[in-house]
Amino acid sequence: MTSGSPALAHVRGRVDRALQTFASQQSGVLLAAGEALRPGAESIAGLLASGKRLRPAFCYWGWRGAGGPDCPEIINAAAALELLHAGALVHDDLMDASDTRRGQPSVHRQFEARHAARRWHGSAGVFGMGMAILLGDLLICWTDEMFHASGLPGEALRRGRPVLDRMRTEVFAGQYLDLLGQATGDESVAGALRVVEFKTTKYTIERPLHLGAALASALADPAAAGGTAGSGVESRDGGMAGAGASLAAAYTAYGLPLGVAFQLRDDILGVFGDPAQTGKPAGDDIREGKRTVLLAIARARATAGQAQVIDRYLGDPLLDEAGTEEIRAAITATGAVEECERMIGRHVGEAIAALDGAPMSGEAREALAELAVTATARDG
Amino acid sequence: MTSGSPALAHVRGRVDRALQTFASQQSGVLLAAGEALRPGAESIAGLLASGKRLRPAFCYWGWRGAGGPDCPEIINAAAALELLHAGALVHDDLMDASDTRRGQPSVHRQFEARHAARRWHGSAGVFGMGMAILLGDLLICWTDEMFHASGLPGEALRRGRPVLDRMRTEVFAGQYLDLLGQATGDESVAGALRVVEFKTTKYTIERPLHLGAALASALADPAAAGGTAGSGVESRDGGMAGAGASLAAAYTAYGLPLGVAFQLRDDILGVFGDPAQTGKPAGDDIREGKRTVLLAIARARATAGQAQVIDRYLGDPLLDEAGTEEIRAAITATGAVEECERMIGRHVGEAIAALDGAPMSGEAREALAELAVTATARDG
Repeated sequence: MTSGSPALAHVRGRVDRALQTFASQQSGVLLAAGEALRPGAESIAGLLASGKRLRPAFCYWGWRGAGGPDCPEIINAAAALELLHAGALVHDDLMDASDTRRGQPSVHRQFEARHAARRWHGSAGVFGMGMAILLGDLLICWTDEMFHASGLPGEALRRGRPVLDRMRTEVFAGQYLDLLGQATGDESVAGALRVVEFKTTKYTIERPLHLGAALASALADPAAAGGTAGSGVESRDGGMAGAGASLAAAYTAYGLPLGVAFQLRDDILGVFGDPAQTGKPAGDDIREGKRTVLLAIARARATAGQAQVIDRYLGDPLLDEAGTEEIRAAITATGAVEECERMIGRHVGEAIAALDGAPMSGEAREALAELAVTATARDG
Repeated sequence: MTSGSPALAHVRGRVDRALQTFASQQSGVLLAAGEALRPGAESIAGLLASGKRLRPAFCYWGWRGAGGPDCPEIINAAAALELLHAGALVHDDLMDASDTRRGQPSVHRQFEARHAARRWHGSAGVFGMGMAILLGDLLICWTDEMFHASGLPGEALRRGRPVLDRMRTEVFAGQYLDLLGQATGDESVAGALRVVEFKTTKYTIERPLHLGAALASALADPAAAGGTAGSGVESRDGGMAGAGASLAAAYTAYGLPLGVAFQLRDDILGVFGDPAQTGKPAGDDIREGKRTVLLAIARARATAGQAQVIDRYLGDPLLDEAGTEEIRAAITATGAVEECERMIGRHVGEAIAALDGAPMSGEAREALAELAVTATARDG
């Protein structure tokens, strides 16, 4: 999904290094509390060592598009989003009872195994759960720490802060809707798209772009530093006013269709993806009974026989290779995959077109157009 | 524990109102994502409606002691600590499988019951866990949001920020050590005290005081506004330098013994407390097998017969009233309760003495002396 992308390559290595530096500093703080914290610090460092860095890339290019210069401070601030993401993933894997993440055992499984191997007291599962909750909490808290220690001027941070706040409330609200939808058995395409809007579109694309733009707005308008810029509502919803508003609107117009395309690609990979690429076992989404747009479309289009196959395997924790092949064939036969591919193409086109005429540099426009294709490519 | 305390009463009502205002504003953000989020918003509002507000009180009096004026902005910033605390409690109750909190069902039990009553799909327990993780995450994130929107000047927030960061890393590190100690069966007094240092002393008393002082240091020294005040290390470890350093040291000297006294009182209440006062069922700590200093002392002093009784009931999830009475009698017979009461008295005395000669106003000194007694009183 991310190989050979200049727009991503421009950010990724520097984000990796910023995270490594931050993780190593935080490891020092943890070990000062006790050597016993080393496995926790190592687990976090391992988790932060990989990742596509899409959210930092959107934040960075959102900043560049708003006239911000290439500098280490924006890389630090953008990298902070990966801490939030890593924390959310640790908690997500726990909620989904996922065994793997980025090709490694998930954090709760790591500590469960540690407990079991040492024959400690109590339940290994409860211990793994507790550790995953705590380490996820730490990562989520560290988002703010890295953001505020990024080195960006105070006025930039002050303007970016409400966007970061909104982004976090939205992503957890989206997860809440997702969990609730699974419980109530909501199988509508509309319900699935609502979850996508909050869990993916806003969180992965729109808010990172807005964050970059809000941070840069302080530089573009230094006279406002220290002033009471913007109304509360505008500030909360994008951190921008005046000239910046049309850029923020362009980012939204780019982010909304791209988020849907991104999620559709994720849905397809979750069912058809190669474990070597996804870092997850084949058919994991089916085994978890994940309520995706792909499946909602497949259900809506399915014949009685296809629906029977889908219902038989969806959410079956013991799904084997033969069953995976059977449900894959049924989903493909409904035409849902083709329809999703068409939707992806159309949405990516819409995203790129939304950048036309937006008040931004040519370099940022090209980078975002390229990122739209990269983030939704088949070779994920 | 808190009735009739002027130092607490001075803060508590205003913190309650600030939290109510914030919760109602955030509820609007959540409901904008979907009406389905209402039960989540209500659960959070219910949790924030009560609480002793000790951490905000220490933050407030830490600010006043450093020369900060009485104003709504410091109340907002101090109240933000209750969001962190509420989030940590939601996650803590989940890890401990606690049924109640502040006299109400714990958050995971609320959603478990909701799922069961509506006969939704999947496991009610897993649903309750997921919701508790997400709502706890939201509360933890909102700490930063309320802190930065407190209305305090940017320079004050910039100085307070590293203290808040350190405080959070420490509390989760302390919980990690606690969980690990329970798993490995560490029954030493030293191990229990190490957990107390991070989970209670620093988190409840020392860091809130330091936070207040760091926030106030920007007002006392306005010339430094916008400058690069303090070295990274000093700033991270208390947010203060120069004249403020001796006040920070006095707060530490006050906080360390008081934290131990506070935890000892909590240990005693966890075994002997009246459910009407604690908001928890009688003997809850015994049922959970909580590794407390009281129990470590009791074990160290126990005769073979007393040890047998303690070991029989400790960590028994089915402990009934008769068993509770029996283990209470055994613990009392070891003399551990009397020893803990003596330790509480001595530590509170040390805490109050540490304020003598500290560079602070008489009013703040009196308030902190009174808070030391209030926070560790028997009528918790």
